[in-house]
Amino acid sequence: MLRPNNLAAFDQTRHSPPFLCLQQALPGRQLRDYCVPVNPYFPTAAMFRVFRDRLEEVLKYYPASNAEVGRVLAEGLGLDPETVVLANGSTELLTWIDVLLVRPSLATPVPTFGRWTDHPLELGKELHAYALRADDDFHLDVADFVRFVRARQVRAIALCNPNNPTGALQSRDEVLFLFDALADLDVVVIDESFLDFADEQGVATVSTEAARRDNVIVLKSLGKNFGLHGVRAGYAVANPRLAATLRLALPHWNVNGLAELLIREFPRHLAEYEVSRRRVIQDRVYLEGRLGSVAGLTVYPSRANFVYLRVPAEIDGTELRNGLLTEHGMLVRECGNKVGSDRSHFRVAARPRDQVDQLIDAMTAVLSPGRLRPAF
Amino acid sequence: MLRPNNLAAFDQTRHSPPFLCLQQALPGRQLRDYCVPVNPYFPTAAMFRVFRDRLEEVLKYYPASNAEVGRVLAEGLGLDPETVVLANGSTELLTWIDVLLVRPSLATPVPTFGRWTDHPLELGKELHAYALRADDDFHLDVADFVRFVRARQVRAIALCNPNNPTGALQSRDEVLFLFDALADLDVVVIDESFLDFADEQGVATVSTEAARRDNVIVLKSLGKNFGLHGVRAGYAVANPRLAATLRLALPHWNVNGLAELLIREFPRHLAEYEVSRRRVIQDRVYLEGRLGSVAGLTVYPSRANFVYLRVPAEIDGTELRNGLLTEHGMLVRECGNKVGSDRSHFRVAARPRDQVDQLIDAMTAVLSPGRLRPAF
Repeated sequence: MLRPNNLAAFDQTRHSPPFLCLQQALPGRQLRDYCVPVNPYFPTAAMFRVFRDRLEEVLKYYPASNAEVGRVLAEGLGLDPETVVLANGSTELLTWIDVLLVRPSLATPVPTFGRWTDHPLELGKELHAYALRADDDFHLDVADFVRFVRARQVRAIALCNPNNPTGALQSRDEVLFLFDALADLDVVVIDESFLDFADEQGVATVSTEAARRDNVIVLKSLGKNFGLHGVRAGYAVANPRLAATLRLALPHWNVNGLAELLIREFPRHLAEYEVSRRRVIQDRVYLEGRLGSVAGLTVYPSRANFVYLRVPAEIDGTELRNGLLTEHGMLVRECGNKVGSDRSHFRVAARPRDQVDQLIDAMTAVLSPGRLRPAF
Repeated sequence: MLRPNNLAAFDQTRHSPPFLCLQQALPGRQLRDYCVPVNPYFPTAAMFRVFRDRLEEVLKYYPASNAEVGRVLAEGLGLDPETVVLANGSTELLTWIDVLLVRPSLATPVPTFGRWTDHPLELGKELHAYALRADDDFHLDVADFVRFVRARQVRAIALCNPNNPTGALQSRDEVLFLFDALADLDVVVIDESFLDFADEQGVATVSTEAARRDNVIVLKSLGKNFGLHGVRAGYAVANPRLAATLRLALPHWNVNGLAELLIREFPRHLAEYEVSRRRVIQDRVYLEGRLGSVAGLTVYPSRANFVYLRVPAEIDGTELRNGLLTEHGMLVRECGNKVGSDRSHFRVAARPRDQVDQLIDAMTAVLSPGRLRPAF
């Protein structure tokens, strides 16, 4: 049964409402999340035991400074510490980039990560949203985007690669084309938060290339890779001058004690991370296949750990979302509040196969003829 | 035995080196920290059990947004949510205040919390340091400070109350005098991070008064109150307009999952917090008394959970610090790198009585005639 009063949380944010808040709003039902693209296989149970054992110690004392934990992270990743900036989630970097480097406007393809569209506007800056085309599976025509940037005389761009929520991946050559074509801009940001899930063989980051350029910043999200959104840990790679500008701007103690412990621990668990990464990709491939079998859904090819899809025009997306949640306890991301999307579009996170099967059954049931009010 | 090579961490920061880094630098010896003023009696063991039990859940998913957790915090504290801004530690607020509101200069009494002296300079802003006088036990003459602010034509001030590292407390009337006298400034910041430890009976915050003023921001540190510096949680109270300016500037997801859990949990544990608060104050009173009995030390009256002291001029403070650390495994804060202090001054954190007794024995031993090289 729909209980719309409990679902007001959806209307209070341009992002998804926090899963735990929805869980509180719907007591007596164990919700299952298909909204937040977490990595369910990492950290391992053994790593969580270390976190629990050392919890009191890492919470009691000050963490090391951002510069210092940043050095540890760079060593763990085999990067030049001068080019690495550690942050309280990649959102913190996005915030400071917008404040310090985006003047007076930003161009970004849409739909994309909501902070790239909403935050510049919150700051009173101008947003130039370039509409991606469903006909091209939301793949960006980089030459056309450069023409758009020039026509609007924009000095800053942000590109999520793979994109969120569409899952579309731009090739390395396309990204380097943008670097070359936009080398005179104030800043070119490539947000690679989901790149680890592009391909089982691995798709190389452009961060080394970024560190050689004057105006490029690559963002990475440890939270997204490691399935720990709540830990708040992300980093940027850029040339030493640009990296120093960001590092100096960030609060001195911006990384919490658990994030610090994670950064000190994970280099010992790279093999387990690699296994988890491949499993997530296999789950996404399975999810894509199963969604493709549901009559009426248009499923776009994904290179991330989620899948973007469109429901038939006669379906009201909000009803579908609420039906899945209240009848089946399943939370999916209805994208009606995203710039460049609408409520006929959904993002579904990759999950283990049995959970995917349950979701497909539920979607099939809710989408069955006569169950939902038509959208028009 | 002194192992100065291991102590290079002290020279790499204007703040204290992180305790856990020093512990790594001195393997084979269990260090005891008297540097970071933590509350050793809170959170309770039961609360830590809740943190451990829910760790995976709060780290896996996104925390709620800063605005949303801020509302929960305001309810827990009985404050108007419009006047509260939640942050990733009070340092995050300090950073944004300096960026957004301090133009082009800041005045602050010194010695004080290092971020208030260092951060404006890092941003290329001007710092007007007003020297507190040892003869007055570092108590601020507020009328003279106002004259200093006017003479320098400064538009922003920050005052820690009680002050860190001196422990000096300004009365409510003195703080309100500053509010009235400086009502035309761009911003007046009162950092009450240690106010809970001023007095067993409790000293009232000026935050309600701040919320009624045009230009006042009160900062509070949950990390300091609750003994959880690593969790990164602090907040500001200001009028709704000023609060909204700060809230909008902060990253959307700036509070990590454990900090959110702490904020949701602590209102159920106010009685235990009150007990812990009183015990910390009793420990500080005991520490003051014991330090006062050590020949040669000048001990300044403290209203915080630490004590500021001066060693005799003929003692080299760095040698004393290193001797306590390497011979006794005890870390105290030598204040030589603080603006307005020097290495003959120390800050010692309140600890349970038996630990205070051990420190006093160690200090007495290290200070005994002939043990340390003279400072000149």
